[in-house]
Amino acid sequence: MTSSKGLEGIVATQSAISSIIDDTLTYVGYDIDDLAYNASFEEVVYLLWHKKLPNKEELTQLKKQLADNMSLPQEVLNHFKTYPINEVHPMAALRTAVSLLGLYDKDAEVMSDESNYEKAISLQAKIATLVTAFARIRKGQEPVAPKSELGYAENFLYMLSGKLPEAIEIEAFDKALVLHADHELNASTFTARVCVATLSDMYSGVTAAIGALKGPLHGGANEQVMKMLMEIGSEDKAEAYILEKLANKEKIMGFGHRVYRLGDPRAKHLRDMSKQLTTLSGEEKWYNISLKVEEVFTAEKNLPPNVDFYSASVYHSLGIDHDLFTPIFAVSRISGWIAHILEQYENNRLIRPRAEYNGPGMQKYIPIEER
Amino acid sequence: MTSSKGLEGIVATQSAISSIIDDTLTYVGYDIDDLAYNASFEEVVYLLWHKKLPNKEELTQLKKQLADNMSLPQEVLNHFKTYPINEVHPMAALRTAVSLLGLYDKDAEVMSDESNYEKAISLQAKIATLVTAFARIRKGQEPVAPKSELGYAENFLYMLSGKLPEAIEIEAFDKALVLHADHELNASTFTARVCVATLSDMYSGVTAAIGALKGPLHGGANEQVMKMLMEIGSEDKAEAYILEKLANKEKIMGFGHRVYRLGDPRAKHLRDMSKQLTTLSGEEKWYNISLKVEEVFTAEKNLPPNVDFYSASVYHSLGIDHDLFTPIFAVSRISGWIAHILEQYENNRLIRPRAEYNGPGMQKYIPIEER
Repeated sequence: MTSSKGLEGIVATQSAISSIIDDTLTYVGYDIDDLAYNASFEEVVYLLWHKKLPNKEELTQLKKQLADNMSLPQEVLNHFKTYPINEVHPMAALRTAVSLLGLYDKDAEVMSDESNYEKAISLQAKIATLVTAFARIRKGQEPVAPKSELGYAENFLYMLSGKLPEAIEIEAFDKALVLHADHELNASTFTARVCVATLSDMYSGVTAAIGALKGPLHGGANEQVMKMLMEIGSEDKAEAYILEKLANKEKIMGFGHRVYRLGDPRAKHLRDMSKQLTTLSGEEKWYNISLKVEEVFTAEKNLPPNVDFYSASVYHSLGIDHDLFTPIFAVSRISGWIAHILEQYENNRLIRPRAEYNGPGMQKYIPIEER
Repeated sequence: MTSSKGLEGIVATQSAISSIIDDTLTYVGYDIDDLAYNASFEEVVYLLWHKKLPNKEELTQLKKQLADNMSLPQEVLNHFKTYPINEVHPMAALRTAVSLLGLYDKDAEVMSDESNYEKAISLQAKIATLVTAFARIRKGQEPVAPKSELGYAENFLYMLSGKLPEAIEIEAFDKALVLHADHELNASTFTARVCVATLSDMYSGVTAAIGALKGPLHGGANEQVMKMLMEIGSEDKAEAYILEKLANKEKIMGFGHRVYRLGDPRAKHLRDMSKQLTTLSGEEKWYNISLKVEEVFTAEKNLPPNVDFYSASVYHSLGIDHDLFTPIFAVSRISGWIAHILEQYENNRLIRPRAEYNGPGMQKYIPIEER
């Protein structure tokens, strides 16, 4: 049998959703650069789920379906108010809330294509409302209801702050959503596929994926990057900080990636946004510190920044609490999770690898009195 | 790269927990037959978590820890009363409740060995209370508090029915828990390991595993077996029923297994229990129908029964609602999930296989007006 720790280099499935070949990331054959410059998040959602870009009518319909499905059951909103919301990890709250949503969906167990597509729309719509409602309720603010005439990115920022965002903020956030939407068999997507390959329902798959994304080796990295930027505090302290961390063999988050050798193609878009948004917010220092960290780190380690590195200063500039960076990753990545769940259902096989036993040899049970 | 749909024949990790070699299942080197005849579930839990059988003192301590941790936060009990409990899938309720438990654990995010062991005890203890409380609340009954002097299997049956069970019922249920406790990299255990390999917390791993076990290709099989036994209704109708299903190419649940070629070593223990318990309950017909189905099916298909087949009539005879069969599977298998989560943490590597892209070739973005 072939053996690979972490399944590195093992192909677990075929997939028509995204590909990473020679450091180029594509969604359904479209280069991520092309999409980042041109496509809206809703177009990308449509692309991932239908394997083609929508025409005008199809896009209008998807936007309407998303807007129509954003409202949460009152019981789910109430649930945020019943537990110690200021003490919980936002991803643990989101994991619970998505699982709970399934209890209010009468068709949660229906496995038809039509029903699963309805669940896809509902989950993609409601996750924006869940994250923003959570963010507000824990601050003692009332949730803000979505506006049906707004696009997805704008609605999210509006529900978060209660104010209509600037055009450049909408554009940046929309682009961040596009860039995070899918990434082949990353750990959370793979968790979702392993889960639903038992033919479990979509809520189970997405809940499992949220749990995986929560881990600091996966979705938690950009929050750690922001923490580092704040510890550094100013550009002139960046070099000494990084060199000391490296000397102490401490991990620096936001660099390198198991599947990219030369560089993560998403990073440059986020770097551009970081520059624009920090200029707008008047806090250029976050961009400048980031740039310096990149310069020092890549000179030492020859590892380029990944998608997480500049998304930290982008989200910070949008006024987003740092512990919401990972939930926002989920708001985008759920589009990919759903695409992969639907693809798994289409041509399913239980995902069941083997373990190589390395424990004690055969033993004989000894009565407890004799142990 | 090596490619395998469903990862069949791929070794994803080393593990010292259980092994399946030549149709023999062992936990930490002890043959499942040896454990089924001799060990209590608590001994097996200790074995899986510590890689050795406990002595008297260690076993007494584990039993006390489990009993002391069975009570639920009042808010979690209340949560069962807030949603449409009679309409939800019990596994969806359990998935949500375990995720919710994490919100009431102040140390949910602490990753020390000590804290994770406390979480292990707490989850193993509380899952019994969750399942029984759910079962009672949906019938309009008050939950029954655990008795600290009872063993795990006895406590479960007591909390479920409110009556102290007979010795033979305790013995049978305890044995069923022993037999289901671990099974190498089955789909739910693998889901848990993929999830926590991001260094996510134990609640995320167990929640993800519950979602996977919920799937009809995994934990749902024994419920389907019972449904079939009831459709058949009497022994004399079994042959015609099975032959008709086979002629229509319909799937018969409870037979065959991807990793056993000759037979599932757990099945015979459950067959023995089924005979004993159906005799006790005066409903021998469930055993007799099962035996007939096995005879007809294996003659036609040469596939022996697996662990799910006779567990259906065993649980039915214990007076357990059929849709609780899978939650009960979780009550046992959580011991294995936890063992694997702890093992994953000990020597972690992110689990991140690759997909082979089979979608459209490179495409150029076309403005929406031109589509």
